Amino acid sequence: MVLKSYDVLVEKVKALPEKKRVIVAAAGDEHTLEAVFNAVDEGIITPVLVGDKAKILDILGKMNREFDADSIYDVPDPVDAAAKTVELIREGKGDFIMKGKLETAQILKPVVNKETGLGQGRVMSHFVLNQLPNYHKLIVTTDGGMMTYPTLEQKKDIIENTVDTLKSLGYDCPKVACVAAVEKVNPKMPETVEADQLAQMNKNGEIKDCIVAGPISLDIALDKEVANIKGYDNEVAGDADVILVPNIQVGNVLGKSIVTIAGGKMAGFIVGAKVPIVLTSRGSSAEEKYLSLVLAAAAVAGK
Amino acid sequence: MVLKSYDVLVEKVKALPEKKRVIVAAAGDEHTLEAVFNAVDEGIITPVLVGDKAKILDILGKMNREFDADSIYDVPDPVDAAAKTVELIREGKGDFIMKGKLETAQILKPVVNKETGLGQGRVMSHFVLNQLPNYHKLIVTTDGGMMTYPTLEQKKDIIENTVDTLKSLGYDCPKVACVAAVEKVNPKMPETVEADQLAQMNKNGEIKDCIVAGPISLDIALDKEVANIKGYDNEVAGDADVILVPNIQVGNVLGKSIVTIAGGKMAGFIVGAKVPIVLTSRGSSAEEKYLSLVLAAAAVAGK
Repeated sequence: MVLKSYDVLVEKVKALPEKKRVIVAAAGDEHTLEAVFNAVDEGIITPVLVGDKAKILDILGKMNREFDADSIYDVPDPVDAAAKTVELIREGKGDFIMKGKLETAQILKPVVNKETGLGQGRVMSHFVLNQLPNYHKLIVTTDGGMMTYPTLEQKKDIIENTVDTLKSLGYDCPKVACVAAVEKVNPKMPETVEADQLAQMNKNGEIKDCIVAGPISLDIALDKEVANIKGYDNEVAGDADVILVPNIQVGNVLGKSIVTIAGGKMAGFIVGAKVPIVLTSRGSSAEEKYLSLVLAAAAVAGK
Repeated sequence: MVLKSYDVLVEKVKALPEKKRVIVAAAGDEHTLEAVFNAVDEGIITPVLVGDKAKILDILGKMNREFDADSIYDVPDPVDAAAKTVELIREGKGDFIMKGKLETAQILKPVVNKETGLGQGRVMSHFVLNQLPNYHKLIVTTDGGMMTYPTLEQKKDIIENTVDTLKSLGYDCPKVACVAAVEKVNPKMPETVEADQLAQMNKNGEIKDCIVAGPISLDIALDKEVANIKGYDNEVAGDADVILVPNIQVGNVLGKSIVTIAGGKMAGFIVGAKVPIVLTSRGSSAEEKYLSLVLAAAAVAGK
């Protein structure tokens, strides 16, 4: 199974017998609450709010929202709210996390705590699922910026995080393209060397449940015709489910190209912990925020 | 002046009182000759052919083309054809170069020769002019891959090559965005440090005739609204004429995104020598080849 569009995913989540519960850490933030309650209206999620209760009630009041004040966990300090959020996940009081008004590092600190956290022994990475204007299915780009210049081992973790997430979304054996500027391994381009090593690790069974190709250029990964012209024959060519970028500079330009230049849709969350962690910024569109909640709900439903 | 679209450039070149002369090095190649004669039909250029005469005449015959056989420089060996091409440029027998059936390194070797070449004391870079689906003018992306991991000094050369080329196309003071994943200088991200240094070199007059901003993310460079949301205030934000990429990995993914994902148009040539050098590959679309010849003709007309 592969996902053809976000509509499929939205329908899937709306049809769930029980709404997934998002724990919002430091929820006293207008744009976060708007995104959350927009998704509530659409029947996507049930919210659990952690943060400055007075502030949260004030914002909900201005939004004309009715919400059971007693259900709010009153933890005004963002660091404490993050710790409480992780504790609630461990107690089974919620299915995934959304970051509110606190720094990314603040929410991640209790998540990565070796004893009381939600780690799984891998690095965490940003999983972004994109709907492109001219591609025949959704496509993941990763890492979106958690690991700035990942090592080979970290790239392996990133692939495994991504494959696990796609499996929870229903994929059988995703096709992963480790992109680089050229298809030939060139010792002067470490990106090509590591892409080749990842493909080898997949061949020898170290990276499982997926097909990894690389080094492969982006156009070959996305367009079978280009692959044919360039004589590149591979299952991944023209049919990639995942674009693994070599570092944050490439990932950032690719992400911005997809949204700003191509007008694509994107949504995502942090993977590698026991539950998804949705981060959206003030700059994110309402649609991106909504689809990120949809995506996280679908991922936890499939676990 | 800025160029809004390729149509403007095509009209400009068609209106030139005299057609610019392209010297085709190792012209015995079907896809090269097709591109050249397509541009001849459109009134863009006059060709000067250097290469294996028998082969060239054979291909032209199959294409049902009439061409003065006596005007062909019969130089069957590609290395010799490259040398002859450079010699002809120096003798004023042509205005720019197009690479035919030979390696890029083969055509560049006589070009960079210190005594008999066409160098200008700078590195050479690939200048690509793109027409994006949603941007209000054409935009350059550079370097397209001549310098794989340019140093700071080489990035300065690349900017100067680009600005000189844009000036010959009629631009007054192009806006250059040195892109990176973040806007804040971070010593752990050398791309941001060098982008900042380039902006400083522009402020202190070392890089002239343009406005350089950086580090700046791609979306801020292209979209004023995003710039406003992120509180980034700068003349280049939302109005960049040039995207300077930090290395070949970023440049390649950006170029492939523009064409494969966004369906943009692109064309380009190598700059830094005394005349443009057009390189197109078998994989290039007919339109890209045509527009590259248009672009080179326009650039030499404006010198």
